[in-house]
Parts: sequence; C-alpha cells; structure tokens
Amino acid sequence: MKISRLIAGVLLTALGLVVNARAADPLPSWNEGKTKQSITGFVEKVTKEGSPDFVPVAERIATFDNDGTLWAEQPMYFQLLFALHRVGVLAPQHPEWKDKEPFASLLKGDVKGALAGGDKALTEIVAVTHSGMTTEEFERIVKEWIATAKHPVTKRPIMEMVYQPMIELLAYLRANGFKTFIVSGGGIEFMRPWTEKIYGIPPEQVVGSSGKLKWEMVDGNPSLLKLPAVDFIDDKEGKPVGIQQHIGRRPIAAFGNSDGDLQMLQWTAAGPGPRFCLYVHHTDAEREFAYDRQSHIGQLAKGLDEAAAKGWTVVSMKDDWKTIFPSVKK
Amino acid sequence: MKISRLIAGVLLTALGLVVNARAADPLPSWNEGKTKQSITGFVEKVTKEGSPDFVPVAERIATFDNDGTLWAEQPMYFQLLFALHRVGVLAPQHPEWKDKEPFASLLKGDVKGALAGGDKALTEIVAVTHSGMTTEEFERIVKEWIATAKHPVTKRPIMEMVYQPMIELLAYLRANGFKTFIVSGGGIEFMRPWTEKIYGIPPEQVVGSSGKLKWEMVDGNPSLLKLPAVDFIDDKEGKPVGIQQHIGRRPIAAFGNSDGDLQMLQWTAAGPGPRFCLYVHHTDAEREFAYDRQSHIGQLAKGLDEAAAKGWTVVSMKDDWKTIFPSVKK
Repeated sequence: MKISRLIAGVLLTALGLVVNARAADPLPSWNEGKTKQSITGFVEKVTKEGSPDFVPVAERIATFDNDGTLWAEQPMYFQLLFALHRVGVLAPQHPEWKDKEPFASLLKGDVKGALAGGDKALTEIVAVTHSGMTTEEFERIVKEWIATAKHPVTKRPIMEMVYQPMIELLAYLRANGFKTFIVSGGGIEFMRPWTEKIYGIPPEQVVGSSGKLKWEMVDGNPSLLKLPAVDFIDDKEGKPVGIQQHIGRRPIAAFGNSDGDLQMLQWTAAGPGPRFCLYVHHTDAEREFAYDRQSHIGQLAKGLDEAAAKGWTVVSMKDDWKTIFPSVKK
Repeated sequence: MKISRLIAGVLLTALGLVVNARAADPLPSWNEGKTKQSITGFVEKVTKEGSPDFVPVAERIATFDNDGTLWAEQPMYFQLLFALHRVGVLAPQHPEWKDKEPFASLLKGDVKGALAGGDKALTEIVAVTHSGMTTEEFERIVKEWIATAKHPVTKRPIMEMVYQPMIELLAYLRANGFKTFIVSGGGIEFMRPWTEKIYGIPPEQVVGSSGKLKWEMVDGNPSLLKLPAVDFIDDKEGKPVGIQQHIGRRPIAAFGNSDGDLQMLQWTAAGPGPRFCLYVHHTDAEREFAYDRQSHIGQLAKGLDEAAAKGWTVVSMKDDWKTIFPSVKK
C-alpha cells in the first residue's frame, strides 16, 4: 500500500513536470512573432539530437555584450557613474583636485565639462578610481556601490536597469545546455562582482577590458595590485580576440547592440554549422531610450546595415518586448 | 502487474547505484595512506552541507599546473618536442636555416647545441613554429601532431604520458562539484586542442601563456592571426595574475609540481576558509623520472620547503601512486 502510494506520487509528479514544461513559455516578456521565433527556432534546431543542425553541449557557447544589450547604457555607461561617484568619495583625500581638471569640473557637478577633456580626461578618471588598490578591495568597493546606486533618470536601482527579456533569454539558453558568457567593453573587474547575482553568469564567464595586475607579497600575505595601466581593450576587433583568449572556442550565438559588437557577430557568423546573431535595437523612447546611427553611446550604424544584409535578427525593443525592466517588488 | 515490475526495476536500479557508489573507489590508482586521505578528507569536508567548512559549488575552483603535474615533462617540455618537430616540417621552405642558428643545429639533430643559444634561441624557435598562421590553422597543426607523437624515452604516445592518478583526481573533484582549470606556463593555444579529450577540461577552463592575436578581415572572411609577440607568461607570479584574469575567483585547491607553481599555491592558501595545496614530487626514477631541487626542468626547491612549513600535501610518486601512466589498450 505504501509503495503503491509512492508510485502514484512519483507518476503524478512526473506528469506535472511534463505538463508544466509544455505550458510554461520560457520567454514570457517577448511578444510573439518573427523575432521570438528566430530565437526559439535556432535553439530547437541545435538541441535536436539526430538533426543535421545538432550542436553538442560543449560547443553551445553564447556571448553577450553587456552595456545596452543586457542592461541600459544611457545617459552614460554605468561604470562611468561608478567612477564619478568614486571621485566624490576620494575627493577629501585629494585637495589638489579642486584646481585640477577633469576633477575640478566633476566636483562642481559639471560632468560634461569634465569629459570635454576627451580620452585623456577619461583615462585620468578611470586611473584614480580603478587602480591603486588590490583586486579584493576593488571588488568590495564595486559591491558596495552597486547595492545602493540609482539611475540618474529613472531613479530605479542600477541593478534593476537590466532587461527582463534578456534575463529570460540567458536562462532559456542555459536550460538548453548553452554556456553563457559576457563579452563587454566594460571593465572585467567592474562586472564580475555582480554578474552571477544579476545574470547567473559566474566570474569565469565574464570577458572584458582589463588593467594590468601586479603580484605582491607583503609579510607573507599575497595580493594582486591594480595598476594604472591598460592591459586589454575588449571592444570592436578586441572582442573576437578576447573570446579566443578567454573561451578558446568560437561562439555559435552572439548578442550585441552596437557597432562595437560587430566583429564579435561577424566572428560568430563565420563559423561552420548553424549560427545565430542578434542585435538589440533601442527603439523605445518612452520605456527606455531611442538611439542608433547618430548616438555618441552605443552607436549602431554599420551593424544595422550588416544585420539587414546577412539576415541577422534585429530586436525592436518597442515592438518585440512586452516589458523592458523587471517588475519591482514592492 | 506491469507497474509493479516497473517499480521493482526502479528500486533495484536505485539500490544498485547506492551499492556501487559505496563500493567504487574514485581514486583506485592512489595507494591508501596519509596523502590520499588528505585529498578525500578535504573534499568530504567542503562538500558536506551544514558543516562549518562547506563551500558552495560555485566557489569550488581547483587549478592544476600541466607539465609535470598532469603529464610528464622530461626529458624536455612536450611543447618543445612539438616545436622541434615543426622546425623539421617547415625546413624545406627555409633553405636559409641550414646556416642559421638555432635551426642549423636542430636540423642536424643537435637539440642541446641549438638550445645553447638560451632564451634568444628558444624565442626564435617558438616564433617560427607558433606564429604566422591563424588560430584555427594552429589548432589543426597541434591536433595532427599530438595524434601521432611519441615520447622520445618511453616510446609511448604523448597522449598516454598523462598521470593516471591525476586523471582520476580531476574526475573525482568534478564529481564533487568542482570546476577544474589548467593554469600552466605552457601555451594556451597549444593545450586547448586536446585538454578536453585527455583531461575532460574544456578550452574555456585552460589558462596559459599566450602570444598576441590580430583580427583580420580578408574578403569578408574573418580570422585571428597569431603574431610573433608574447602577450602573457603564465608562470610564477604570472599564475595568480592569470587566475584572476581568466577565472576572477580565488581557487580553494591548487596542484603543482615545481617552484613555478609556488605563487599559485600561496595565492590559493591565503584565502579564507578551507584550502588545499598539493605538490607532486617526482621521486620515481624507475617508473617515471626522479628530480627536484637541482633539476633544470620543473625545479622544486622553495616549494618543498614551503610545503613542509605550511603542511601542504606532497605526493611521492613512488610511494603514493599504484600506477603512473594509464594502462595501454592492446
């Protein structure tokens, strides 16, 4: 009697799982249509054993840009928000900044004025905020900032400026045996402290720009010091290079939103067998931001042309996404 | 009736699995004793939920040196065997090598004479054999070589010069939720073509020394060209740097065999919570090679001292390993 009840329970549970799997839409924030179908069609094709398009699990590598692809990037990269915040925190230790650009402008709240100094100004801001501490100290600083930082326009927590449809897409791909990687122009050490929590992507699957590190042994205590020197820029033609260095295997699917992602998509598309390339097109001025060919951030011009020519999937945020940001828990 | 037979089958299978799991020793090539116990004791401790030493799966990172730790490295690094082989293959296209060192000596079979030119000679040999082709061409070249290469002393296939006890250890750690990485001074592009097949370690979990890569687009066909310029040396203090760049998380267990691994072990040991560091000590002149403090390859001097001082596990190949190489299928 006990055993037959056990069996009944097991069978009901199994039945429940089957029904559930059929009923649940893994991409509920995506509107039905061509875009969504292109994604699910590709995944079904490469995961179907015995099909000519079948791809073994080990080769199911998917790479995602971060800024503008997984979370927002307007009105400025969030890593720059972090850097500006850090300048404010560090200012009391640097009285000389009051008379020194780009810091003088920044401390008066004039971000535009500070960034008018171009790459040189930006490099100085990044250097003072991203080096001179150990990797572990930097991780703690980033975690503290991201736990409380708010977006300057939407006032939402920065951690909730991620795109809900892309969070679902990441989970959907992983449920189908894909390994999901970030391949971003952003700082690798800036992203790793929170990508696992927000995207389910562990630090070892994050590729990004990096500064040089120095091994130091002080009183038998080893540390890695962040130096004010660029080691690698993971943007444009740097993206396939970063992919090769970190992953060593060509992705079969790649996701971006700007011309900075074009080489990653080209590299992905040029491999043998089934391939999937997708651009997120920022078309929703009401719910997010609308920008492409003329934007100073996340410019998408060549990429749009190539996507059209090659038949890559282009997501219109306005038309293809039911919701953009995760619903906030009250 | 059918269902009760099904249940009986399920229960018997389950019972079989339990019995099997108890009976099977995951490390059959390791002799019983203190060394083996130190490994299993650590793994049991960190995987026991609720224990103060429990480590979540995501943090179970284990890093392994390759040369001398996972496969042999005498009488010379196998990557050097590969390079010397390639010099022979390429020689017909380079008539000038007949009068040019280090190639002239090499082509006469005088390896020692060729390497008498020191780092400069070695750099030239590596440059001509490891650059000037795309990453995909190089992968094919390495795969072709390793499929047939034989060890100069044992005459065994190079692929069978791996240490059977370490293969078991890798599998045992993975079965317990560890992610296993190679962190080697060897070339990352030289290792990746075969680590998955031999060690079960996918390319994205291989960290090594690397040369610079260049993105090229020729007639719409993208490729990554291997340049004759060093990008990163993953040895000594480079190992913790490579770990941080590629993994972004400190290992909780590290395995090496030489002073080149010392900083990796120190970095691993210095983290909070339970830690495991192990040195493979080459003590078996009969079944493998015996060398340590005075060796020109895989020197182990400082490491032996530090292991003794810190209580790290030191494997004596002679005493702790029942077999060294996998038994050859006839």
